[in-house]
Amino acid sequence: MKLVSYRCKKSYGAFRIGIVDGDKVMDVNEAFRQYLLANGEKDHANTVDSLLPSAPNSYYALGEQAFKRSQIAYDFVKDHSIENVSFNRNEVVLSQPIPTTAKVICVGKNYSEHVKEMKSEIPTFPVLFAKFPNAMIGPEDPILKSVHTNELDYEAELAVVIGKTASHVHQQDALDYVVGYTIGNDSSARDLQKRTPQWLQGKSLDHSSPIGPWVVTTDELPDPSNLDIKSFVNGEPRQSSNTKHLIFDVPFLIEFISGLITLNPGDVILSGTPDGVGFAMDPPQFLNAGDSVRIEIEKIGQLENKVK
Amino acid sequence: MKLVSYRCKKSYGAFRIGIVDGDKVMDVNEAFRQYLLANGEKDHANTVDSLLPSAPNSYYALGEQAFKRSQIAYDFVKDHSIENVSFNRNEVVLSQPIPTTAKVICVGKNYSEHVKEMKSEIPTFPVLFAKFPNAMIGPEDPILKSVHTNELDYEAELAVVIGKTASHVHQQDALDYVVGYTIGNDSSARDLQKRTPQWLQGKSLDHSSPIGPWVVTTDELPDPSNLDIKSFVNGEPRQSSNTKHLIFDVPFLIEFISGLITLNPGDVILSGTPDGVGFAMDPPQFLNAGDSVRIEIEKIGQLENKVK
Repeated sequence: MKLVSYRCKKSYGAFRIGIVDGDKVMDVNEAFRQYLLANGEKDHANTVDSLLPSAPNSYYALGEQAFKRSQIAYDFVKDHSIENVSFNRNEVVLSQPIPTTAKVICVGKNYSEHVKEMKSEIPTFPVLFAKFPNAMIGPEDPILKSVHTNELDYEAELAVVIGKTASHVHQQDALDYVVGYTIGNDSSARDLQKRTPQWLQGKSLDHSSPIGPWVVTTDELPDPSNLDIKSFVNGEPRQSSNTKHLIFDVPFLIEFISGLITLNPGDVILSGTPDGVGFAMDPPQFLNAGDSVRIEIEKIGQLENKVK
Repeated sequence: MKLVSYRCKKSYGAFRIGIVDGDKVMDVNEAFRQYLLANGEKDHANTVDSLLPSAPNSYYALGEQAFKRSQIAYDFVKDHSIENVSFNRNEVVLSQPIPTTAKVICVGKNYSEHVKEMKSEIPTFPVLFAKFPNAMIGPEDPILKSVHTNELDYEAELAVVIGKTASHVHQQDALDYVVGYTIGNDSSARDLQKRTPQWLQGKSLDHSSPIGPWVVTTDELPDPSNLDIKSFVNGEPRQSSNTKHLIFDVPFLIEFISGLITLNPGDVILSGTPDGVGFAMDPPQFLNAGDSVRIEIEKIGQLENKVK
């Protein structure tokens, strides 16, 4: 499944969980309601909403049960060719596919070629830092360039979305705690990131960091260890690598982080960026209003955002 | 007012917003309900809950209106000597007085004597880093010493609690955006903090960082610029300073941070710790199970937590 947060363009309603299927977006909550009705349940909105919430934060808080019921709803709609639960892709707006309350834990220096281009050293332990929710935006939102930076940069990253509460998880079980993968752009204001020893102020600017467009669930994408990852600025190739070059791979990161910080469903690990960032170009190339940043990850799709 | 999150010991109910008054804790939502009834409103639980939510996250999300109505409710109860809206202090448990979803933005190296003892340099800009919600605990919770650290340390800090959405605020208006002040213990696992260039992994361990016991609102404590701040481990004095020694004071921090990161009601700025941390003692002294850390800030009170 490709899980999204969507809203009809014509409505002022809240964002709801959907599943993208070709050029359609299926409303998961409504699909599950029709499944329940077809199976003899009475129509009671509260029941459906407690079993499969439409609101992204509540949906992810429910975790595994929500994902299982989504699959049931999706299969039911497909098997019975039901059409009145879906919208055309161009009728809807997509928001960030993760909860607005998610912890976004970022990993720095996790591709050796990127460590080299930043003239840094290969770390002995994963380098962790944070983005706060104020930074996160969706696939159709513009990246806001803060008035406080002249050095806004992109970082293409595989984003790991947690599916069940993870604390002290072992590497060999780690992927069981993942619901799916998406694309992250770890926007970095290099001047702000580097003016103090801690990167947060350059990494968590308001509306700076796109994520999406959807969470590809692990039934479709079970193995994150060999995925091409690329970025483009105004169509010009910038980064091109593969997740097999991660210094600390996804299972290791989950073991490492969950031993320190309990991860909840919907939380995100941004796994690090490969070489080719604007800061390391000669001369450095930073983002300006009007620029477009596109990131592609194999088997997930692409995330493209304009800078404003 | 001294705002707390409390729950009756005898109930399994959710934490609710209360006001501490001597050895009593008044339920703010119930007090406001009685105020509305006395003023001719019909008794309708939904109305009361939307006007003044009992749940801390919703209460702070409402912001200024919630604080104003709390004052009305408090004054009403005091003026009419109403007693059935309060509990004895020993009948209730206190949780963290801030929302579980709050952004906790920490400031490092913000007292010059502490910068010296850490053999560091006075920063040109505030050094910002994060704690995630998993780290935060209340005044009656134990500090969990992670199995991954042998160097757990305390840091006494003035905690600034935001009262209304703050974005690009000027210093001279900054204190208008504060609802009040409380005490924070910026627990720091020095070995984890220092094994990579980014501090997050030593600063955001599960259940490591107490905050509380209450938010003293700005009507009681308008000026945070001259408050004695002290800490004690097992009764032994460790830190003793005053907030007048902050390198970047509270108004400056609010201007600086809100220019980069939008602050919401309930968000917290941990303003930095003075000298006297365990790491800088000769030999260094770290916390172990059974130790007790007490922090006192003038005009706020004290925050004492056992290590487990």
